[in-house]
Amino acid sequence: MGGLHGVFFSPLDGSPRKASGGATACNPQMSAPVPLSEALRLVVITDRRLAAPRPVEEVVARALEAGARCVQLRDKTATPRSLLGQAERLRGLTRRWGALLFVNDRFDIALAAEADGVHLGPEDLPVAAVRRATPPGFLIGYSTDVPEKARAAQDEGADYIGCGAVFPTATKADAGQAIGVEGLRRVVEAVDVPVVGIGGITPQNAPGVVQGSGAAGVAVVGAVMGAPDVAEAVRALLAAFRP
Amino acid sequence: MGGLHGVFFSPLDGSPRKASGGATACNPQMSAPVPLSEALRLVVITDRRLAAPRPVEEVVARALEAGARCVQLRDKTATPRSLLGQAERLRGLTRRWGALLFVNDRFDIALAAEADGVHLGPEDLPVAAVRRATPPGFLIGYSTDVPEKARAAQDEGADYIGCGAVFPTATKADAGQAIGVEGLRRVVEAVDVPVVGIGGITPQNAPGVVQGSGAAGVAVVGAVMGAPDVAEAVRALLAAFRP
Repeated sequence: MGGLHGVFFSPLDGSPRKASGGATACNPQMSAPVPLSEALRLVVITDRRLAAPRPVEEVVARALEAGARCVQLRDKTATPRSLLGQAERLRGLTRRWGALLFVNDRFDIALAAEADGVHLGPEDLPVAAVRRATPPGFLIGYSTDVPEKARAAQDEGADYIGCGAVFPTATKADAGQAIGVEGLRRVVEAVDVPVVGIGGITPQNAPGVVQGSGAAGVAVVGAVMGAPDVAEAVRALLAAFRP
Repeated sequence: MGGLHGVFFSPLDGSPRKASGGATACNPQMSAPVPLSEALRLVVITDRRLAAPRPVEEVVARALEAGARCVQLRDKTATPRSLLGQAERLRGLTRRWGALLFVNDRFDIALAAEADGVHLGPEDLPVAAVRRATPPGFLIGYSTDVPEKARAAQDEGADYIGCGAVFPTATKADAGQAIGVEGLRRVVEAVDVPVVGIGGITPQNAPGVVQGSGAAGVAVVGAVMGAPDVAEAVRALLAAFRP
């Protein structure tokens, strides 16, 4: 697989894309970032344990080659230094594909690694505080399955909402009761920013989630990190967006 | 004690100070910040356990009234939200006295609370990465007792060095072997930025530490947080700087 070098492909249909923009012109291995709403079609959340014995970076590289354009670094047990190292490696990979990189919880790590944004939960710093403390253009995602809280987060400056668990899931112990596609739809209808469904999403149920809720995309942990064939899983998940 | 309101006192000699500068003019309860080298004469590091049953904020308020002009919020067990709440309350207190506020470890909390800076250790994010990711004027402290590492931290952008343990201490389990006043002096001589001695500092040994090492100041946890009479402890520690 020489996909990380050479010709660039546009994020979603595989057609060749020309290098453009300052950074891209200086470094032929970088692609211009895709728009947020496109990138969010599939959010690949990292999990070292599920990726093993493969390094997370290897799984992410395969997912990017297959068309994923958004990666969220999540590692609750890493030291700050180790988390920064992971974020920097993922930043290198995502830049080559014009993909967005988010860091879970900590915007200091995100800023230090030049990630595109941070993903916050209810236990993390409030969206408004993070918005005030970060530079213009820094992206903020916020997790909630409550329509009113999603609206409030949007009003505080959240750029997208992560909403779930849509289905029961084993990868997040504190995910609460599943809200179903209908619960996701209620959050989608409550806000103007993109909403990403999370929790128990598979290539099989993804089309029903997207079409039944109007969500901008799906976020997955196990469906990509644990996939024996990462490229196949990513292509199957992205196929939910085909007309 | 009405010291948090009304007339302002200059940081070190207790003489009245006139309000000046934009922010101060708008809010009569704010003093202009003191210069870093002055503020660092005494760094009051918080410790909820040692302050108990008094709230940390009460101990800090008394320390500020008595002349302390630098506070470092340290709480390794608090959630991010709780840490931000503490930082915001300490920001309110320190602003009234023109005192500097640092947050230990996490510059995201520091930025969100509008603290003056962050204090980093060897396990935290590298100084250079934090320098790149934070706005101009944001202050960075770095802990080391190795002259070469202190020099490297200065070159990466550290504004001051915390150095110790000077004496054996019970408040930091991972402080390593005590370096003594001589060890502190070696670090002072290795850098141009201010160096603050930490570890087992008391009102009794502080004059010897300062005069024997040339350190810009001392940082204390127990000597203030655990003091039955906080004001007395602070005045006694600051007296180490009297000619």
